[in-house]
Amino acid sequence: MINERLLKDIEFIVELDKMKSILRQTSLMDKSKRENDAEHSWHISVMAMVLSEYTNEEVDTFKVIKMLLVHDLVEIYAGDTFCYDVEGNKSKKDRELKAADKIFGILEEYKGKEMRSLWNEFEEMKTKEALFAASMDRLQPFLNNYYSDGGTWKKFKVSKKDIYERIAPLKSSSDELWKFTENMIEDAFDKGYIEKE
Amino acid sequence: MINERLLKDIEFIVELDKMKSILRQTSLMDKSKRENDAEHSWHISVMAMVLSEYTNEEVDTFKVIKMLLVHDLVEIYAGDTFCYDVEGNKSKKDRELKAADKIFGILEEYKGKEMRSLWNEFEEMKTKEALFAASMDRLQPFLNNYYSDGGTWKKFKVSKKDIYERIAPLKSSSDELWKFTENMIEDAFDKGYIEKE
Repeated sequence: MINERLLKDIEFIVELDKMKSILRQTSLMDKSKRENDAEHSWHISVMAMVLSEYTNEEVDTFKVIKMLLVHDLVEIYAGDTFCYDVEGNKSKKDRELKAADKIFGILEEYKGKEMRSLWNEFEEMKTKEALFAASMDRLQPFLNNYYSDGGTWKKFKVSKKDIYERIAPLKSSSDELWKFTENMIEDAFDKGYIEKE
Repeated sequence: MINERLLKDIEFIVELDKMKSILRQTSLMDKSKRENDAEHSWHISVMAMVLSEYTNEEVDTFKVIKMLLVHDLVEIYAGDTFCYDVEGNKSKKDRELKAADKIFGILEEYKGKEMRSLWNEFEEMKTKEALFAASMDRLQPFLNNYYSDGGTWKKFKVSKKDIYERIAPLKSSSDELWKFTENMIEDAFDKGYIEKE
């Protein structure tokens, strides 16, 4: 007898392979190539393991990691929208909702719902877990830009104000990490990686 | 005041970026490129989320995922050793132990120990969590080979016996997944992806 639920799981797992080809704007720190969604999702999941001790309130790290592992799955169909792309971000929500129907719809209903609710929680950015997850999602490209002499900040002439806005979830999530990051922003500015306005 | 522990964490996180350049033998299912350790580690972590319901005994999925996220970190210095490379596997243990000292040694002692003990547990493959983690680590390249018309099986003339040996942890971890995989091995053999001996 064939287990239909398992067949759906395998179909989903096969689809995941496409995440390895969804390129992001961010480059590796050694500038050798642009990173993809699978690499990014792994990096921030390990970061959550390492940095969760610094949150102001204790968080459920398992939930944070599950969110981070699936937070970009919609990009298999919706593509990666660069955070500073004004036009692309206008249609982003709509494209990603359709993509969520498609990717989570592959799984048996209860399983798809569980995954989708992790994605929803991440997107809404209200719970302390979602805020910390968003912090990791933003701190990683921040570090990659810093350690590749400015990376996409320089390439797209990103301003200090933009970066402060983008990294804001970290401010409400962890005083310790925020203090550290704020120093790095100022240092990146002094180094000429970031525009003033 | 600088938080020395956090500086070590950041140094570790920066080092993680190198996982995106450690190539494995396995290709993507669409054959477009070889996958790397970061992509692989992400893929198997999501697989653990999806497939943990099929284990014979209930497992601590959080622990499994933490193991999977860090199981290949030693390859940053020791490189990827192809599972069917007899010569490479003779020196593997020694190379990886030195690499473990180096990578986990970046972190504050208690944190490095915690990570290293996850890696040790994975390597020893004795606990039910380690067995399930090993199952994911082996099932993913198995699926990638199957869905890329034989992949490294064909390229390196891997035999049915080799594959049965390689996938063995799955047999002791989950009857359901084992039954499914056994069918796929026989099907791959019928399709000519696998050598007889």
